[in-house]
Amino acid sequence: MRILITDVVLLPELGWPWPLESSADHEVFADIGVEDGVIISIQEHGDGECARSGQREAQQGRWDRIIKGRGRLALPGLINAHTHLGMSVLRGYGDDLPLMVWLREKMWPMEDQLTPEDVYWASSMAIGEMLRGGVTTCGDMYFHMDAAAQAVCETGIRASLSRGIQGLGGSGLKGLEEAVRFCQEWHHEAEGRITTMLGPHAPFTCPPDFLRKVVKWAENLAVPLHIHVAETADEVTQIRELYGTTPLGMLAEYGALELPVMAVHCVHFTQDDVDLAREKDVRIVHCPGSNMKLGSGIAPLPELLDAGLKVGLGTDSAASNNKLDLWEEMRFASLIHKAQRQDATAIPGKVSLNLATSGGGETLFLEKVGKLLPGWAADLILVEKEGLHWQPSCNVATSVVYAGQRSDVSLTMVAGRVLYEDGKLLTIDEEKVCHEVNSTAGRLGLIS
Amino acid sequence: MRILITDVVLLPELGWPWPLESSADHEVFADIGVEDGVIISIQEHGDGECARSGQREAQQGRWDRIIKGRGRLALPGLINAHTHLGMSVLRGYGDDLPLMVWLREKMWPMEDQLTPEDVYWASSMAIGEMLRGGVTTCGDMYFHMDAAAQAVCETGIRASLSRGIQGLGGSGLKGLEEAVRFCQEWHHEAEGRITTMLGPHAPFTCPPDFLRKVVKWAENLAVPLHIHVAETADEVTQIRELYGTTPLGMLAEYGALELPVMAVHCVHFTQDDVDLAREKDVRIVHCPGSNMKLGSGIAPLPELLDAGLKVGLGTDSAASNNKLDLWEEMRFASLIHKAQRQDATAIPGKVSLNLATSGGGETLFLEKVGKLLPGWAADLILVEKEGLHWQPSCNVATSVVYAGQRSDVSLTMVAGRVLYEDGKLLTIDEEKVCHEVNSTAGRLGLIS
Repeated sequence: MRILITDVVLLPELGWPWPLESSADHEVFADIGVEDGVIISIQEHGDGECARSGQREAQQGRWDRIIKGRGRLALPGLINAHTHLGMSVLRGYGDDLPLMVWLREKMWPMEDQLTPEDVYWASSMAIGEMLRGGVTTCGDMYFHMDAAAQAVCETGIRASLSRGIQGLGGSGLKGLEEAVRFCQEWHHEAEGRITTMLGPHAPFTCPPDFLRKVVKWAENLAVPLHIHVAETADEVTQIRELYGTTPLGMLAEYGALELPVMAVHCVHFTQDDVDLAREKDVRIVHCPGSNMKLGSGIAPLPELLDAGLKVGLGTDSAASNNKLDLWEEMRFASLIHKAQRQDATAIPGKVSLNLATSGGGETLFLEKVGKLLPGWAADLILVEKEGLHWQPSCNVATSVVYAGQRSDVSLTMVAGRVLYEDGKLLTIDEEKVCHEVNSTAGRLGLIS
Repeated sequence: MRILITDVVLLPELGWPWPLESSADHEVFADIGVEDGVIISIQEHGDGECARSGQREAQQGRWDRIIKGRGRLALPGLINAHTHLGMSVLRGYGDDLPLMVWLREKMWPMEDQLTPEDVYWASSMAIGEMLRGGVTTCGDMYFHMDAAAQAVCETGIRASLSRGIQGLGGSGLKGLEEAVRFCQEWHHEAEGRITTMLGPHAPFTCPPDFLRKVVKWAENLAVPLHIHVAETADEVTQIRELYGTTPLGMLAEYGALELPVMAVHCVHFTQDDVDLAREKDVRIVHCPGSNMKLGSGIAPLPELLDAGLKVGLGTDSAASNNKLDLWEEMRFASLIHKAQRQDATAIPGKVSLNLATSGGGETLFLEKVGKLLPGWAADLILVEKEGLHWQPSCNVATSVVYAGQRSDVSLTMVAGRVLYEDGKLLTIDEEKVCHEVNSTAGRLGLIS
């Protein structure tokens, strides 16, 4: 399928790495050509008024479809680098509770009752919610992962999938075996949209012996690790008592940081952790919404970025957020650090926009995902900026972060395929997934 | 106009004061009758399936219009207790800059160039944005206030309006004179939708002599004061150097707290300030989004509520937010205090929902505005909760805060009149206001 998207507005800033090298704020109009899941051309032109429509019409035979951009903003698809899709069925169950009560009394007892079919429907719903909000890639860690992978296959989203495993209790090795089998079966499946990682849950649930086995398997499989690190102050205390070091230090001690690692949360990183992460090129996922809602704290994002670390954004699950909305996470990422440091210049809007796009691609170890550039994945969204809440757009890039909202997304494309357009999900039966998820919630006694 | 809204879902929690007396989470179905701008009846019934449609049809002659609620959630209209409507034309101008640079180099030079017509169009646009997001009342402080009042008259929103004044430089008494005249002309106008306050800008811009004059005039006019207090750490330092007390202490010293006072921000309140505010029944507006974006800090909301103070939420202006979105402010109000204190139980979602509704009504000194109760103002909104991001709704009240978004609002009614319905503003020509606001922005050189 060859698609031409005409007359979109582009933000040149999004091609750049942070720290930002320039403060140029101008946008340009362009046509984007897509073929075989990849952006093949970006042709800049003067304005949004179909300046070269004659020329395009002459080219029309080259394209199977022409999508009229009509001055909408084209952005790289947003990347939700850390979530637990299957937990969407637990959305709103346990709001405003302390983390351990939430986990022990609410989440775990319910998760024990989830079937693969439940995870399939919850994942499908979560993917639908994300596509509507312009998310084109997610990093998922959960269980019954064949069901999640099936939902990824069918819906058309891009995903890095990990079977979450932990070494406490008796089920660790069985989980590891399943996780290894999952990587072997699914890595690079769904036309390459699926990649896999091994998902040891966290330093405090993966003792050294277990962790060593996971590391060895990750080496064999040549996949990265996806792991929660230093999410809460309690975790840091516990790990220090057990191992005399920080959670990241513990991972280093047992060889995990010799592999590619995506570390999630990192709320309670010390400066030594930041330095160690830089030395080992650990990729970081910042989850401000979930860290706030669970009372975990505020991660040292400015220090992480100052150190040159690669950082993406994640929503965490709908049970601890309660949205899968990268627009919110971008805004949180800029706002909460300004508040905490009483410094309005902390984490400028454009930095958050980069974290939510190319930052996420790097964090998930994906090649050429997260920028609008020729040769990169055709994962993109079109955004309406005609709403009252966008006027005037003195600075389009910061308006995305500070004024935009997920309902401004009017088209979502993944790997060159349109999955959401003009209010409709094209690969998901919304009524059906809502019905099935609410049936599960009813069976579990979560709703009346 | 007599309107019956059938088969809506109500949240009984919203009738209650905080601290919440009950944790009951159940919702009820009901029909809401409206006449002469007031809710005249709320009839609970069994379910959403038009249970008593026969009975209602028999009653049909009583109503000029029947609005089918179809299981949508009915909430009291949201109240944006503090904003500067006219500043919407400066949205996105000066993002990510320190407060004083933002103010001195960006806002003030532009504000000097604004005409009454500019303020009229910017206010109309801001009101349109708010109505779309379910805001039915706002507290506005700005200048060229006749223009703002005209916009309020025409659009149908409810508003408490203050001409912002300050005593530094030579224009103080002229401003005060204008503010007094504004109160005299506009208080209780627009069928009672407009109320007025005097708006001395802040303790640091209103020296004692000037403040005393303002207090005297407020007494004469019998209107409250609307004032920024303790927004930044610098302000507190400056006031302590000048007067040897806190900003609120300074207001007390010069008699201002003997009047009804709405104090905005209160980010840097001490415990003594909290105690003083309680003693004087000072109403507080919490503006978390703006306080974060300008790097001002995080107000001690839990302490304010523990003291039993009446608190509302505000967006501040679109130049420092950049949205006029109470859904976001509710979520911020719950999330940032959890993060700061590392306590997931801080400011539960239901508390924020109360702050955004009845809290705002009390803060603005309005009678019977902010709850869905017979005899109260017919200011209400209908909210679609069928979207994927609402499923499952284990707890509808917290889902409003943690999962809901402004685009879920499908109908906004103020004083018994529908102003927004099914995607259309009924009293505002959106294309025209966007055009006019962007013309102003172009004239000021804010956009190319």
